[in-house]
Amino acid sequence: MENFTYCTPTKYVFGRGAENESGKETLNAGMKTVLLVYGQGSAEKSGLLDRVRKSLNEYGIAMFELGGVKPNPEDDLVYAGIKICKENGVDGLLAVGGGSAIDTAKAIALGAVYDGDFWDFFSGRTKAEEALPIGCVLTIPAAGSEGSGNSVITKKDGMIKISLRTDYVLRPKFALLNPELTFSLPPYQTASGIADMMAHIMERYFTTTPDVEITDRVSEGILKAIIEEAPKVMSNPDDYESRANIMWSGTLAHNGICGTGRKEDWTSHAMEHEISAVYGVTHGAGLAVVFPAWMTYMAEKQPSKIAQFGRRIFGVESHDDKVAAEEGISCLKAFFGSIGLPVTFSELGIDNPDLPLLVERLHKTKGDVIGGYRQLTAEDTIEIYRLAL
Amino acid sequence: MENFTYCTPTKYVFGRGAENESGKETLNAGMKTVLLVYGQGSAEKSGLLDRVRKSLNEYGIAMFELGGVKPNPEDDLVYAGIKICKENGVDGLLAVGGGSAIDTAKAIALGAVYDGDFWDFFSGRTKAEEALPIGCVLTIPAAGSEGSGNSVITKKDGMIKISLRTDYVLRPKFALLNPELTFSLPPYQTASGIADMMAHIMERYFTTTPDVEITDRVSEGILKAIIEEAPKVMSNPDDYESRANIMWSGTLAHNGICGTGRKEDWTSHAMEHEISAVYGVTHGAGLAVVFPAWMTYMAEKQPSKIAQFGRRIFGVESHDDKVAAEEGISCLKAFFGSIGLPVTFSELGIDNPDLPLLVERLHKTKGDVIGGYRQLTAEDTIEIYRLAL
Repeated sequence: MENFTYCTPTKYVFGRGAENESGKETLNAGMKTVLLVYGQGSAEKSGLLDRVRKSLNEYGIAMFELGGVKPNPEDDLVYAGIKICKENGVDGLLAVGGGSAIDTAKAIALGAVYDGDFWDFFSGRTKAEEALPIGCVLTIPAAGSEGSGNSVITKKDGMIKISLRTDYVLRPKFALLNPELTFSLPPYQTASGIADMMAHIMERYFTTTPDVEITDRVSEGILKAIIEEAPKVMSNPDDYESRANIMWSGTLAHNGICGTGRKEDWTSHAMEHEISAVYGVTHGAGLAVVFPAWMTYMAEKQPSKIAQFGRRIFGVESHDDKVAAEEGISCLKAFFGSIGLPVTFSELGIDNPDLPLLVERLHKTKGDVIGGYRQLTAEDTIEIYRLAL
Repeated sequence: MENFTYCTPTKYVFGRGAENESGKETLNAGMKTVLLVYGQGSAEKSGLLDRVRKSLNEYGIAMFELGGVKPNPEDDLVYAGIKICKENGVDGLLAVGGGSAIDTAKAIALGAVYDGDFWDFFSGRTKAEEALPIGCVLTIPAAGSEGSGNSVITKKDGMIKISLRTDYVLRPKFALLNPELTFSLPPYQTASGIADMMAHIMERYFTTTPDVEITDRVSEGILKAIIEEAPKVMSNPDDYESRANIMWSGTLAHNGICGTGRKEDWTSHAMEHEISAVYGVTHGAGLAVVFPAWMTYMAEKQPSKIAQFGRRIFGVESHDDKVAAEEGISCLKAFFGSIGLPVTFSELGIDNPDLPLLVERLHKTKGDVIGGYRQLTAEDTIEIYRLAL
């Protein structure tokens, strides 16, 4: 086990009606004038935004608003939000939505207290040490941004998706999680969220760090719970209990607990970010395509942990690591298929992907060699993309 | 799943040399004059206390000291600590030791900012809403106090063990966890700590709340990791890796994650507290005796979750709940026995326990009816004590 520092101070309020705590928790977090950040209309239509506004009003919180955040959120709205915050003395952000709204709020929170360009933090030029406080009302269990210190924004100039990971500064002060708000998610979005949260665990699970039994077992536990609950939410979208299990799983998948004491990987995320940047696909669906391909490559080159995944998650019995790994991957693909997700480029709707372009973009952003479980060059990553054809 | 609020703001610094961060983290937590709280000599002899003092000195932290905390810590040292804090403008506590030192520091932290008797908080007369900040250097993985908001103190008047559970106010600001500090623990103390952390999970695992797959699976994961790592620490006490796995398991067992969204039980803890109050046994060893007895009683009356434990933790295959429960209990007892723990009163060194006295004390403190998984009166609890004979 490697040395680590771990701190997750987010206060989670989980259950029916959690959004009605918006005002109370916003005030508790010391915010008096907030910028509400939300998406493209569903929260308005459903009445959720009105409930949040009402709760903020009850606690005397002044508010400005920034709507229209899209999936794979772009920097134009971040700049717009920073401007609103600076011009109006906004002292906190409240995101209402999924990862896109929350990630946008996080980037705004950094830029609002910084004189330069907020991209300085994402490029690593400036260390993120200060930000406005953030709260959120989660509507899509997937990105895990409600508990993480991370943000992913797309730079419109070049359409580059860039991630920023902080230890604490971007972790929300509070996250309000009401599973009922997820009843209305379309099946494809529900399924994509499930793939995304599983990927967040697996990017940490596949490690070369030895002797991490405790985090292996916790990770396996969350994966098993997701795999058991997923068919229930797909067949009965209004089932509160399975929605609740999936929602809390998504938070635990990415609040860092599965990564304590171990080297992580994140190759599949990096490879998927290029696909969604170029082809505009849903992030989780892209992961359902890339991750099994990455695992297939590893089953050949470095199968041990992939085999453990097969045995412990899907009960594969083979003592041969390569065989156990391959059987586990088949089970994972079958699972993704069973909830309506693609596992190949063509199923994702991309019949002739420009693999050299994806590889070029990938290594241009991430460097010549990427990966934690195994170091990979362009020769390897193009092969992994090919395995997804 | 039940509604819940969950917040664990403790910053964990885990790994070799973590104690040398004492000064830095104490200052980060805003403390400038601390009361060092520690036990009966081992931390002094090993040189640990000197390393902590040196680190505090380096960061200009002034310090007062309170040593001599015993297992099952008593209120006399709490009063002594409160007096030191009040007379010297102490603004924080740093506990060096196991649960006893940390729980003592927590009680002092409450009393130091309160005009009345600190027992008011433990009796429920006054709500714990304010306390001095606390940090800790952990030397015994067992009580989980390094991440919990709880404290257990023995009232010398009547020798009553009383627990206080808070959501946030008593959670340490930071916990420094160096597995090397646990190499020197005697085998019986190591094993008792293992039983204690397992019990912390099981008190939450055995619930009547339905549809809590995510927390069931996380709990099972931690239990499995403990059961796998325990024989390694017992046979090789200097094995850093298994010590590290056990140490982190002990924190996760009791920081509340296993209890989110579910009714908890805590009967076995309450029953054990009377045994250790009357007979002065080690808490974890007492739990290894009481918990299987409680489970045996439940295997007869309400076996479903005990059966799930048998199947998922020990791979029991029977489809009959009562049989699966009983087989799981046998496996658990065999496991405790294999690491040198008692599973009966006589193995615990108490040949003729005064069961009516234990039951009388138990219900006098806890009320006529106790228990979450199943409500129990004195008729039930005496039967459970009898099953431990």
